[in-house]
Amino acid sequence: MIRIRPATASDVPLIRELIQELAVYEREPHSVHITEEHLLRDGFAANDGNNPRCFECLIAEYNGEPAGFALYFPIYSTWRGPSLYLEDLFVRPEFRRHGLGKTLLRQVAAIAVERGCARLEWSVLVWNTPAIDFYQSLGAVPLDQWQRMRVTGEALAKLAGAGKEIEAEA
Amino acid sequence: MIRIRPATASDVPLIRELIQELAVYEREPHSVHITEEHLLRDGFAANDGNNPRCFECLIAEYNGEPAGFALYFPIYSTWRGPSLYLEDLFVRPEFRRHGLGKTLLRQVAAIAVERGCARLEWSVLVWNTPAIDFYQSLGAVPLDQWQRMRVTGEALAKLAGAGKEIEAEA
Repeated sequence: MIRIRPATASDVPLIRELIQELAVYEREPHSVHITEEHLLRDGFAANDGNNPRCFECLIAEYNGEPAGFALYFPIYSTWRGPSLYLEDLFVRPEFRRHGLGKTLLRQVAAIAVERGCARLEWSVLVWNTPAIDFYQSLGAVPLDQWQRMRVTGEALAKLAGAGKEIEAEA
Repeated sequence: MIRIRPATASDVPLIRELIQELAVYEREPHSVHITEEHLLRDGFAANDGNNPRCFECLIAEYNGEPAGFALYFPIYSTWRGPSLYLEDLFVRPEFRRHGLGKTLLRQVAAIAVERGCARLEWSVLVWNTPAIDFYQSLGAVPLDQWQRMRVTGEALAKLAGAGKEIEAEA
């Protein structure tokens, strides 16, 4: 009944829909700026040294219906080496409580181990305590000693502009 | 006096030393399991589609002395697209207060903008309030709505083992 398969280019419209559905669940319905063209370019173009793929994706089907997805990419630990980061894990509401989320997570963990990755990491919204409890029941630990920071938009451009000046001076 | 340059394979022993010095600062002196061989393989091997490089690295020099480093790699946002993650940013204590950390951060920001990245992200220890204040002064925001989770070691193997069974059944 449950089938997990790697996404292909023809899944891009579905992936874009699932990203939007996850954003709605995360109370950020207007935050998705990515387009199908971006996803096609970033995840499914020819994989060479100049343009390595930015992510990989698994699709979960339930009785042949598209029910969820997991989207992940490599990260690196300078203590432990190559690892995987699970950017998105989502199961459509009508397909929940059948073990699809756990099956997707386990499949990504299997890929991590197969590739010799030391760690699998992801992020969860702090108010999503059912998810946090679920992840902890599977052996995940919260990295509560670390605060993630982000610079984006005008602040990034400003910081980068200063970087360029420094490079020119060097 | 300040020079920022891309690291090369011959910098691997230096990078390994700087990673260890950063781990000592982070109160985790025994956590670095990475070797020079790993770093050489993961960051400086031939860059092709099968084995894309796991990270890139900048070295900061002050008056010709190796003074610090920044190590980063691409990540992906399903809302915004390609982004950069700064895994390590470190300046040796004797070279602090000369603007090296800010110069390294600005240079990574410039690389992010040059590559069309929407975001530059990194993590900071929650007790390192001077660093958090410094980053906020540069326009960075703490992502305090997100809790990072990690599964590693036996828990990862266990989760992965279950994943393999499911794959075999599918």
